[in-house]
Amino acid sequence: MPELFTVQTPPDAWARFLEHFSPQVRSERIATADALDRVLAEQLVSPQDLPEFPRSTVDGYAVTAADTYGATPGLPAFLSVVGEVPMGKAATIEIGVGEAAIVHTGGMVPPGADAVVMVENTQRVDEASIEVMQPVSEGQSVIQIGEDIRKGQPILAPGHRLRPQDVGGLLALGITEIAVALPPVVGIISTGDEVVAPDQPVQPGQVRDINSYSLGALAERAGARVVRYGIIPDNRAALEAAARRAVQECDIVVFSAGSSVSYRDMTADVIGELGRPGVLVHGVSVKPGKPTILAVCDGKAIFGLPGNPVSAMVIFDLFITPAICALLGTAAPPQTRINARLARNIASDTGREDYIQVRLEEREGERWAVPVLGKSNLIYTLVNAEGTIKVPLDSGGIRAGEWVTVVLH
Amino acid sequence: MPELFTVQTPPDAWARFLEHFSPQVRSERIATADALDRVLAEQLVSPQDLPEFPRSTVDGYAVTAADTYGATPGLPAFLSVVGEVPMGKAATIEIGVGEAAIVHTGGMVPPGADAVVMVENTQRVDEASIEVMQPVSEGQSVIQIGEDIRKGQPILAPGHRLRPQDVGGLLALGITEIAVALPPVVGIISTGDEVVAPDQPVQPGQVRDINSYSLGALAERAGARVVRYGIIPDNRAALEAAARRAVQECDIVVFSAGSSVSYRDMTADVIGELGRPGVLVHGVSVKPGKPTILAVCDGKAIFGLPGNPVSAMVIFDLFITPAICALLGTAAPPQTRINARLARNIASDTGREDYIQVRLEEREGERWAVPVLGKSNLIYTLVNAEGTIKVPLDSGGIRAGEWVTVVLH
Repeated sequence: MPELFTVQTPPDAWARFLEHFSPQVRSERIATADALDRVLAEQLVSPQDLPEFPRSTVDGYAVTAADTYGATPGLPAFLSVVGEVPMGKAATIEIGVGEAAIVHTGGMVPPGADAVVMVENTQRVDEASIEVMQPVSEGQSVIQIGEDIRKGQPILAPGHRLRPQDVGGLLALGITEIAVALPPVVGIISTGDEVVAPDQPVQPGQVRDINSYSLGALAERAGARVVRYGIIPDNRAALEAAARRAVQECDIVVFSAGSSVSYRDMTADVIGELGRPGVLVHGVSVKPGKPTILAVCDGKAIFGLPGNPVSAMVIFDLFITPAICALLGTAAPPQTRINARLARNIASDTGREDYIQVRLEEREGERWAVPVLGKSNLIYTLVNAEGTIKVPLDSGGIRAGEWVTVVLH
Repeated sequence: MPELFTVQTPPDAWARFLEHFSPQVRSERIATADALDRVLAEQLVSPQDLPEFPRSTVDGYAVTAADTYGATPGLPAFLSVVGEVPMGKAATIEIGVGEAAIVHTGGMVPPGADAVVMVENTQRVDEASIEVMQPVSEGQSVIQIGEDIRKGQPILAPGHRLRPQDVGGLLALGITEIAVALPPVVGIISTGDEVVAPDQPVQPGQVRDINSYSLGALAERAGARVVRYGIIPDNRAALEAAARRAVQECDIVVFSAGSSVSYRDMTADVIGELGRPGVLVHGVSVKPGKPTILAVCDGKAIFGLPGNPVSAMVIFDLFITPAICALLGTAAPPQTRINARLARNIASDTGREDYIQVRLEEREGERWAVPVLGKSNLIYTLVNAEGTIKVPLDSGGIRAGEWVTVVLH
């Protein structure tokens, strides 16, 4: 009845998994305006110069810079105002020597002009002339054609997660539709005869399903679409039927297995029959999370997670979030990391990664990471925590007072 | 024609705004399963003990701890197996002295038992008896009633943004519906005779609308719902009509104004007539972003932003994201901050906050923040940047080599 599996380190487990997992990014075309936080699936190149015409950055007068050289308030340059460039229109006037035209911020600088004098540095003489009291250099207060971005210049590469400024930058170029990665579909199968849906009454001996939802939320955060297959009774036929349906419909299937050895064995057996090569890793040197299964079945990524909700979330972050990112063609989502001093000693074993939930406290201007007390398999240790610290494989523990990196939840 | 407004520091401007802005959080009840990243609008208290029955954390035998004291492989404790507790059921057996019952991970520990011996530390003698080869202490491998969370204990407070584990933790208690803050509605009005919708052909002198989308994306990220009022022609009647409609329909109205002084003055005038007290701040000591308007009109928050897309995003982060968070009843959204060394000198003026866009580079194991070259009003300076650094009000600049805090985009 004791489990006989060979535990692998997380890096070894992931490497073994990647030997057999060849993620293919599938894409769809969507409106750029709706693409915030989506992952780009094509190389974008600027179809035009931006701007396409020289633009003024100030309100003032378009001039030939040379006409202003040496101008001072005491000895201003005198220029004839030959017209005004209306906003949103091409300039129809041309500036010659000794001439100026009114331009507005963002408006076109007319041909012949090579700089703009700010209105603050001019004085109106009469309807048709101004005095310029400060010289401008060539190009001053003008955005040149293509100065923002040039036609043919690469903009954004596949794998880039679109930020607000990217949406704006693409629309500025008229790129109103783009190819983004289709969200991978993650199927979640909960098992356990003791598990009931959260909206059902619980009887003594029963507990409500946590993992279908907490893991689903992690998957959504990573950019996946989630299908929940409900709570499957602990019998092999039912589990097999659900597994086959999920493998058909999803890119990634996650078993949130009953926690006991016999259920885990059954899950491993069922996964083993879903396709080739089957189970690759059974057991990782992670605490909490040791009884984890990594498998690839006919190209689909399959994971068996411990039933304990904390272990399940730790392992999800460790293996399934990266698998989702691989299917999106992007690097792992950026985590928010901060430094803090550890508030109490943490013991660990070398050869094992430990993940410790912590709260943060300010003490005399320093930030401290305080491990959350309680058995590591209680969901409220995670609810009460603000972040996680990792005790690396090669460490026997971390002493109180040492600086640690906290990954915020 | 020069602008005559009194520039205020960002903290002063925000304080003045808050004197007149009294955000009311509105809430709605939604399914907890759908509440990821939403902001809680009620105090939640645990309606029950979790777990409601003592649970085993291992596969093994429920025993009376005292029966195992002193047990060793050489001198094991001999116990009668009186039954098995099935998963998901109440235990119907009771453990007496010298007795044990088979329990599975997550199963109920039967009455009379106060600890569980892992199966690995036992040996089966026959159908009805085992040897225990290692003692267990009272409570060992048992989660006590209420050990995860106790009935009546506060769980999460209003203003908390729900994380995956929170969703799981609430559902574990059968809290399937919760009150969350209704997303504030942010209306965006673009103006400028030179601005055209991104899907329209541009003529010489015209540019495509960026701000409706980049600012809309920032608003969505902060947790707001966005209404775009399109591009309003630069005449007072049209602007007034759009403004009145937006103020009616939204909690926050953002004018992405034409950039020139005359347009800005018109925007300020229109805002001034939308309600009491009207314009509170006209001009902030921020670069880029000086010509910013903060107003409160009959309880609605109104902002006039510079047309320049970089300024507009900087100012949005500075004032509108906090206003959205106030309407959600939450602190500002957590930003990802990292430290880096500044790659070149940055000049600034004391009395002004400067926001500089930077790329990140690794050089000999250290992270460097490299300011993105180019005029600060070009959208691609933001697209090509990974984060922003701030030169504080009281600083005359930052020297190359100094450590700075980068807020990642």
